[in-house]
Amino acid sequence: MSLIVQKFGGSSVANAERVMNVAKIVTDTYKAGNDVIVVVSAQGDTTDDLIAKAMEINQKPSKREMDMLLSSGEQISIALLAMAIEKLGCPVISLLGWQAGFNTNSTYGSARIKKINTERLKNEVNKKKIVVVAGFQGICKYDDVTTLGRGGSDSSAVAIAAALHADRCQIFTDVEGVYTADPRKVKNAEKLSEITYDEMLELATLGAQVLNNRSVEIAKKYNVELEVLSSLKRANGTIVKEVTKMETMYIRGVTKDSNVARISIIGVKDVPGIAFKIFSRLAASNINVDIILQSVGRDSTKDIAFTVSRDNAEKSVELLENYDVLGGAKIKCDTDVAKISVVGAGMESHPGTAATMFEALYGADINIQMISTSEIKISVLIDSKDADRAVSAVHAAFFPEVS
Amino acid sequence: MSLIVQKFGGSSVANAERVMNVAKIVTDTYKAGNDVIVVVSAQGDTTDDLIAKAMEINQKPSKREMDMLLSSGEQISIALLAMAIEKLGCPVISLLGWQAGFNTNSTYGSARIKKINTERLKNEVNKKKIVVVAGFQGICKYDDVTTLGRGGSDSSAVAIAAALHADRCQIFTDVEGVYTADPRKVKNAEKLSEITYDEMLELATLGAQVLNNRSVEIAKKYNVELEVLSSLKRANGTIVKEVTKMETMYIRGVTKDSNVARISIIGVKDVPGIAFKIFSRLAASNINVDIILQSVGRDSTKDIAFTVSRDNAEKSVELLENYDVLGGAKIKCDTDVAKISVVGAGMESHPGTAATMFEALYGADINIQMISTSEIKISVLIDSKDADRAVSAVHAAFFPEVS
Repeated sequence: MSLIVQKFGGSSVANAERVMNVAKIVTDTYKAGNDVIVVVSAQGDTTDDLIAKAMEINQKPSKREMDMLLSSGEQISIALLAMAIEKLGCPVISLLGWQAGFNTNSTYGSARIKKINTERLKNEVNKKKIVVVAGFQGICKYDDVTTLGRGGSDSSAVAIAAALHADRCQIFTDVEGVYTADPRKVKNAEKLSEITYDEMLELATLGAQVLNNRSVEIAKKYNVELEVLSSLKRANGTIVKEVTKMETMYIRGVTKDSNVARISIIGVKDVPGIAFKIFSRLAASNINVDIILQSVGRDSTKDIAFTVSRDNAEKSVELLENYDVLGGAKIKCDTDVAKISVVGAGMESHPGTAATMFEALYGADINIQMISTSEIKISVLIDSKDADRAVSAVHAAFFPEVS
Repeated sequence: MSLIVQKFGGSSVANAERVMNVAKIVTDTYKAGNDVIVVVSAQGDTTDDLIAKAMEINQKPSKREMDMLLSSGEQISIALLAMAIEKLGCPVISLLGWQAGFNTNSTYGSARIKKINTERLKNEVNKKKIVVVAGFQGICKYDDVTTLGRGGSDSSAVAIAAALHADRCQIFTDVEGVYTADPRKVKNAEKLSEITYDEMLELATLGAQVLNNRSVEIAKKYNVELEVLSSLKRANGTIVKEVTKMETMYIRGVTKDSNVARISIIGVKDVPGIAFKIFSRLAASNINVDIILQSVGRDSTKDIAFTVSRDNAEKSVELLENYDVLGGAKIKCDTDVAKISVVGAGMESHPGTAATMFEALYGADINIQMISTSEIKISVLIDSKDADRAVSAVHAAFFPEVS
């Protein structure tokens, strides 16, 4: 007998029919002899609807009251799912974040889980009940309701799996697993049967949008075996774990990230400490910088370019334009860019990876603006209009069509 | 400086505009130098919408999960009202039932308040915050969310007022106070400036639908001064308290209750204990019996008739039809009936009250089916089609039009 944690996102419980479908998956797992804890998000567009209601009243509500408002969404979905499970004849109980013991810090709107008091969760599981837990929420030391921020339900599920040493944490989504590229756009995309935490982290960061990044970090830290699979089609998904068995493919996937902007600082004085001053100023405003490129100095000035997420672009430009250290340097911002990446732990032992990628882009007549590499990733920045073509071309180079 | 508890029902917070209107009333009270605790219900049709969602999934959900579902309604309204108060620039905090210290028994769906732990409420008030509390909900000893049943938000407000010795508890509704009859139906209806708890209890029981009955009982027990007033029009309402100053009118009002059914048991054996056996059987199923009428015995049988609320009619018939004690007696149920009552503490010293009422009904050619009296009330059961005419006729007899 195993303890299995299952997580279902908002689209999986969007209406009565889908709630019943989830109840079927959960009760089948339970009837097969497993203990089951289920984590659910708010139904479909509930969160957006609640935000719209708030905006009608106050454009800048406090985050504390916003958390109070938004956490009602999961409350509705856990109650409905519990009723669906009752209907299928299995013992069940729903628990809110605070009832399930989720203690967080008090950063309303994007709280971090500090600890799970597992007493009640364990009690209910021991009573042979299916436990349905509200994802995305907890309480802070002031006994206030907090939310974990976007994708927080994944973290809730993984944290429960870690705290209770669950045998597996299944993340149900509307895709069948992790693919070598977006299957809706690249015809030859293949589903991966296994992937390592580090590879998954690179893919999540790069916009694969399958798993929330923080949840993968927690899974890696506590060695929780994850499975990403479909709530609509019963089939094996992709297992995420520490070490995977060697597969023939050494590249795990090709991704596109359009949430990126390039900031260029042109003609900054070529003296020591400039880069430090620029990036510490951005860091102080919580702006994460991704790819950085610095030109070789010409005369007494040089150029520095870097990428940030698109929603940080305006703020970055503002911070730099009002920065006396930069003197008369010109600040430019380009949002018509996209980042294309190949990810794979096998890359280290395959020196030709970058060359293969660049050749594919050259063959498709696509210009590379910036390059960044890590041990398991190569990213390039290109014009956003070329992005989908670039993914197809690079994917074809690494995963030749079997004909 | 006073502590004032204000309660707003679902229709008072039904949309963004009304929420802002409530925020204005609350902040005006606060800015006048008072401490303010606000209790709100779920917005407009929220509760009905949530019930509909549940019914789509499970026609007979457990009451525990129903409470989990329904309590999300007040969570939304307290957050929105708090945001509206923030917008008007006053310090505010919203609290769920459990955060406000509402401890109830574990009768899910119609829980009773056992105790309020006032620590947090007091702390927030001492910080000079307006406190917005979710009505209708609490937690039981199992740390489960409970709801208080229909009209429970009134009880929440009065219980807070009692626990914190508030100077006044204002119940805002869509009427301007308590009237001598339904002002939408009786043109001559007058607003009362004061009324006693006992009179209010009779009026609430009789379907005046202004104040929840249990809330009046709590107010009477802890001597909380209530005021019923309009959330839409700023004007004095009706004060409910222990003793009112003598007024010229000794009748407080004329009410109609259509939520009533008459059950008749015809031809039951005329032996001792029959009535006891019938009514204890109904009591065991939590069915409240109102008016009881027993015919004088003819030959060896007699007839017993009584009234119950309409939703208990079917169940009552079922219980009696399968009851061997009744032998071959015939059970009849009539739901086309209504109860008309006059209420007033001055009635005791006015012996002609019943006569005046019966004369008015006779003058309107309305047949009386059953009669029941208490020290401050006279009720008659009549055909439901005559109900509105009966209220007008009786009201005119006690409150003659000033011309």
